[in-house]
Amino acid sequence: MVTNPYCSVQLAEDHKSVVLLDQRRLPNLKEYRNFYSASEVAEAIREMVVRGAPAIGVAAGFGIAVEAHRLLNLRDFEGYRKELEMACDLLERSRPTAVNLSWVVQRIRKLLSQEYNSQESLERAIMKEASLISSEDVAVNYSIAKIGNQLIPHRANILHLCNTGALATVDWGTALGVIRMGHIAGKEIHVWVCETRPRLQGAKLTTWELQQQNIPMTLIVDSAAGYLMQMKKVDLCLVGADRVASNGDTANKIGTYTMACLARLHHIPFYIVTPLSSIDANIISGDEIQIEERLSDEILRPSGESLVASETTSVYNPAFDITPACFISGFVTEVGILQPPFTLQVLARLKKEYASRTIT
Amino acid sequence: MVTNPYCSVQLAEDHKSVVLLDQRRLPNLKEYRNFYSASEVAEAIREMVVRGAPAIGVAAGFGIAVEAHRLLNLRDFEGYRKELEMACDLLERSRPTAVNLSWVVQRIRKLLSQEYNSQESLERAIMKEASLISSEDVAVNYSIAKIGNQLIPHRANILHLCNTGALATVDWGTALGVIRMGHIAGKEIHVWVCETRPRLQGAKLTTWELQQQNIPMTLIVDSAAGYLMQMKKVDLCLVGADRVASNGDTANKIGTYTMACLARLHHIPFYIVTPLSSIDANIISGDEIQIEERLSDEILRPSGESLVASETTSVYNPAFDITPACFISGFVTEVGILQPPFTLQVLARLKKEYASRTIT
Repeated sequence: MVTNPYCSVQLAEDHKSVVLLDQRRLPNLKEYRNFYSASEVAEAIREMVVRGAPAIGVAAGFGIAVEAHRLLNLRDFEGYRKELEMACDLLERSRPTAVNLSWVVQRIRKLLSQEYNSQESLERAIMKEASLISSEDVAVNYSIAKIGNQLIPHRANILHLCNTGALATVDWGTALGVIRMGHIAGKEIHVWVCETRPRLQGAKLTTWELQQQNIPMTLIVDSAAGYLMQMKKVDLCLVGADRVASNGDTANKIGTYTMACLARLHHIPFYIVTPLSSIDANIISGDEIQIEERLSDEILRPSGESLVASETTSVYNPAFDITPACFISGFVTEVGILQPPFTLQVLARLKKEYASRTIT
Repeated sequence: MVTNPYCSVQLAEDHKSVVLLDQRRLPNLKEYRNFYSASEVAEAIREMVVRGAPAIGVAAGFGIAVEAHRLLNLRDFEGYRKELEMACDLLERSRPTAVNLSWVVQRIRKLLSQEYNSQESLERAIMKEASLISSEDVAVNYSIAKIGNQLIPHRANILHLCNTGALATVDWGTALGVIRMGHIAGKEIHVWVCETRPRLQGAKLTTWELQQQNIPMTLIVDSAAGYLMQMKKVDLCLVGADRVASNGDTANKIGTYTMACLARLHHIPFYIVTPLSSIDANIISGDEIQIEERLSDEILRPSGESLVASETTSVYNPAFDITPACFISGFVTEVGILQPPFTLQVLARLKKEYASRTIT
């Protein structure tokens, strides 16, 4: 099913562990690691062994599935359910900004409240649901890539922030999936890769993925984006999303808002590429999105090694920012290029419509 | 004369070497190193042992002075002059963007074409000129700091890029000198320090200087600047300049243009703080300013250690960008807050006027 020579997240064949490609070691080392319980998976999400909103969601789903397998016959049925409820809570809290995480957990929590004859049948239902979430991700991203490809002109210079590739999902990716589809279609694409401080996902992960896929690219520091636009070297900006509010305000990697401001000032199209599952119709605007603040060491130790400033330096490290809807040209989703507002009703209809025409 | 417990550039007492505070080792190590010839000083400028347009200029002046001292009696008078001409050429080429460098070299080259009785008398004239350039820098920056202080409101949050402090000059600094003056005046200043990729001068040097001076500050990644402005947490942007064209277009550290775009979109004042010596009235606009492109390793190895992307990754590393004059609220100089255009006549009059009321 997966079309890449690497897979960010999968269930081990024996159902005993979640297998994650350790994204902290890339591009130097391509190391897969096994996580045997919900708490191990939650820790891996917090530590960013796996990152990217869709990949985190899928990892959480498999995390509960693995926990369900591990606890079989260790508890009575009620205790079993309760432990799995706790696993859901734990995973849901592992990172605050991405909505996919809570959306996946909600899907599995629904199963916990249903009737089952045995622990085994509940466990099988959870496994099935987690696997379905994973294969849906692949199908959804493939659709996104095909739809987004329409936006890419021939010989396009595309600016990209962070990593939104197969590593951030199960396959294809969101914004990078669109770029890959355009490349496969022969469009002579060149990608400006923002290094994406502080965690350098652009430098570490996006360059690696583009090299795997033979897509021409050039790495820049984030603050060179303005200069490139001024020099008319950017045709299009494509980024992902961690959470989109009903009005279209979008939480994404810190720096997205800066890039959107620059794109607006230079009249360059700026698209958010995201599955419907990252749209949270329960919140009205970006004001309601919690911005995760991460540790100062991410800024003080750029390569994870030596300090560049004194250890006591005061640091502000918001991991995300909110781009207001009015700065966004459109939302590339699996059902088409959408404009806000996104109501619950509209989303439900769109999701249903998509499910009815997709075989996963 | 210098009011700081550190000095970026000075002449050794025996006139045999230029003493530079090695800025590559800060903040971990405060190490002074001696450079005994023009070529050693040129190498130090290229390697960024010393950086900051005014400090580079002063270092170049002392570099020629040290060369003049070293070559005394080694050559006949004509050979002596020729060697010093070559030293001027070498130093002028050591970094391309800053104008101070060529301005300083021009001042000393003028002496080489004058009549002198002996090598000693020419050498003394060069020493005197280089020392004058250094003490002028201190006086000019002190004036800039006093004038710029008028722009700072009480309880100001100031955004700053790169390093423009005493390290980038001989004392006080330009933009950071203004901030220091505001702090001394009791204005409860807080500085948002952009880390300034790729060389991290903000993280490494500006945090260190502000800590030495007890000025409250917070370090951020460059791409968080937009988010801070959106949150209304920035009152004022102050940055330096490497070269200003007659029309006011300004070359400064990569990222300056991005910051100026953000300031414009958020209606935040954006000032260039610069001595008149950084204004190059010989060029009409920013189009004529050569942008130095530096090595890819500055991006690939953020701490100078491990690679973050594959060594073969294509990198674009422009060290500067050009901010058009229309994005700049004003130019804080030693003679007042100016607006372009800057003609040669106006500059000459302003420089003369300033010299007449300053005792250096």
